[in-house]
Amino acid sequence: MSADLSSHLSGLRFTVDYHLTGTEAETRANAEVLCIEQTVEAPLEILPAGPIREQVLGRVENFTSCAACRHEAVISYPVELLDGTCAQLLNVVFGMSSLKPSIRLARLHLPDEILKGWPGPRFGRAGLRRLVGVPQRPLVCGVLKPLGLAPADLAELAYQFALGGVDLVKDDQGLADHSFCPFEERVARCVEAVARANQETGRICLYVPHVTGPWEALRRRSLFAKQAGAGGLLICPGLVGFDTLRDVARDEAIALPIVSHPALLGSFIVSHESGLAPSVVFGQLPRLAGADASIYPIYDVGYAVSREDCRVVAFAAAEPMGALKPIFPTAAGRMGLDRAREMSELYGSEVLFILGSGLQRHEEGLVKACRTFVDLVARFSQQPAKA
Amino acid sequence: MSADLSSHLSGLRFTVDYHLTGTEAETRANAEVLCIEQTVEAPLEILPAGPIREQVLGRVENFTSCAACRHEAVISYPVELLDGTCAQLLNVVFGMSSLKPSIRLARLHLPDEILKGWPGPRFGRAGLRRLVGVPQRPLVCGVLKPLGLAPADLAELAYQFALGGVDLVKDDQGLADHSFCPFEERVARCVEAVARANQETGRICLYVPHVTGPWEALRRRSLFAKQAGAGGLLICPGLVGFDTLRDVARDEAIALPIVSHPALLGSFIVSHESGLAPSVVFGQLPRLAGADASIYPIYDVGYAVSREDCRVVAFAAAEPMGALKPIFPTAAGRMGLDRAREMSELYGSEVLFILGSGLQRHEEGLVKACRTFVDLVARFSQQPAKA
Repeated sequence: MSADLSSHLSGLRFTVDYHLTGTEAETRANAEVLCIEQTVEAPLEILPAGPIREQVLGRVENFTSCAACRHEAVISYPVELLDGTCAQLLNVVFGMSSLKPSIRLARLHLPDEILKGWPGPRFGRAGLRRLVGVPQRPLVCGVLKPLGLAPADLAELAYQFALGGVDLVKDDQGLADHSFCPFEERVARCVEAVARANQETGRICLYVPHVTGPWEALRRRSLFAKQAGAGGLLICPGLVGFDTLRDVARDEAIALPIVSHPALLGSFIVSHESGLAPSVVFGQLPRLAGADASIYPIYDVGYAVSREDCRVVAFAAAEPMGALKPIFPTAAGRMGLDRAREMSELYGSEVLFILGSGLQRHEEGLVKACRTFVDLVARFSQQPAKA
Repeated sequence: MSADLSSHLSGLRFTVDYHLTGTEAETRANAEVLCIEQTVEAPLEILPAGPIREQVLGRVENFTSCAACRHEAVISYPVELLDGTCAQLLNVVFGMSSLKPSIRLARLHLPDEILKGWPGPRFGRAGLRRLVGVPQRPLVCGVLKPLGLAPADLAELAYQFALGGVDLVKDDQGLADHSFCPFEERVARCVEAVARANQETGRICLYVPHVTGPWEALRRRSLFAKQAGAGGLLICPGLVGFDTLRDVARDEAIALPIVSHPALLGSFIVSHESGLAPSVVFGQLPRLAGADASIYPIYDVGYAVSREDCRVVAFAAAEPMGALKPIFPTAAGRMGLDRAREMSELYGSEVLFILGSGLQRHEEGLVKACRTFVDLVARFSQQPAKA
């Protein structure tokens, strides 16, 4: 048996950075427990001698203090535990440790041999830029709100956004398939409205409907949206699992850009001593799953996200990761003209901005306010980013 | 438009209890913000007069102080925002608030009119008891570990557990479809081994393989398990979404008991000031989705779960909830003979115990140790539970 297991293990391992809170003695002990609980999850005494102990078990590859009471352990696992799905990746790296109060998953390091099995984003930054015909400046996205409006009203709003020169118009994630705003009617009307505006402007704005739901409904909605002429899809992986997003991204019958929304994902980041780092949950995971843009909140709007978090998510969205395309960090949270400069300087030009709905009541009118916002971020993003 | 929306809203609302941390002034303000962010997610100024303001918006129905710096707000939403899926339920009640550091979802209250649309558990406690022929005592489940063993070795372990008189034998959630332990071979061998033991004991032990994966793989594995003669399925809703569990529970071609596993769900409970209460994530949600048993950790084994948490999850697993069947709170975490009395007294007889793998090395041998454990919990569970 042991010989047989050995023949299945290549010796190649991948590593994960964990931040551990506590004294050095506590955190060293916790790192050793983590190696067990994330793999064999059994007392060492019951492990047979040989490859289970020597290779299947997690292994502490490095242990450093990074600040008072916070330690970083780099732990490795055999690549053969993975199977190319987000479910199994998260299971191996954090399934049981999610229940621990002082362990945070800080970063995934997957070797190229493993990343080969992850196609990732179909479009990525360059692909999305080609679709909307905008080679350089930040992209801008309007949102169809509030929940409660009828499809015709949302379509009128979509028309105005598109006339204002935004690159995408997306559904609010609160829009589902409600009796007062049925999915298919909404999609048909908004596609038509955006196409009409595009004819007037000569530009290309994409309409991105929200398709989150159980797998069958989500796929049916995605295919309907594709047929109807939608330009992308909005999916909440926190509500349906990252593999659902992955499966849509790989689906040749759909083949649309995917915008990931953070609904319910906040619980992974709110406690700084546990859960997943924002760069993992809003950067590495959506990119691995195949999102082309990943929405997360900006700072100073009441969410548990700091300016530094925004910066590191943006970094994770584009850092070298096998052949995976860089994706758009997508900054959201009541963004109006007042924050255009600050955010453009932080992100530079490689960002997608979600407009706050306050713009609907802007004194200039929505169309003009959108134009002003696009102009401002185009201009300010040329300034060097401040660290 | 407004008139049209009104005609879609019945006036029936469901309520959710939230725990808010902060001063009374802060938490009252946060409750009002929550009403907005979970529904229209837009400044009040852009809302048209009429039913969006009057009915779609969340509404604070009650606000009480429950302890220093912790306040409880009961907030209602129109039932028409829901669609019978877990994704939309979680979206409406906690999608954006998950990103807030001081808001915890404490309890869902769904009216019977809504619960009619949720079939919930197919078997529940009574159904699972009928399947294994055990009318009264706690049920007991062995686990196939450690990861790294070949199917033949796991099958031998399953045989011994079943010979020892446990009611279920489940895969460890670490077992996927690895080259060194392929899913189909494991299932076929374990089903055969448990059936052989059942013939010897004259009892009925169910084998419960782990089927978590992206929807297509999960459904294929579930159907294979059903065909092969497995007695239940182990699913991790934290990895694949609660609707995936729901869809399997409703699937007439599968129709097997479902055991829910907490992998990755820990991040929702680790911070006491944010996320979801354990009774929601391990009690209400798995039950709504259709799990027949919900695994969560016992206290004092290093996980962020208290004795009181264990008690309230068990309560949520059985409290009146429309026509939904009560399910088994399923207590796990290195449980050996040493904790049989304490846990039986806490839970009484309506519990499923997961045996710790330490029992594999028990001096009496695994088969005898299982028998002893089953006898002990049968006896001690007859004592009145201590509060």
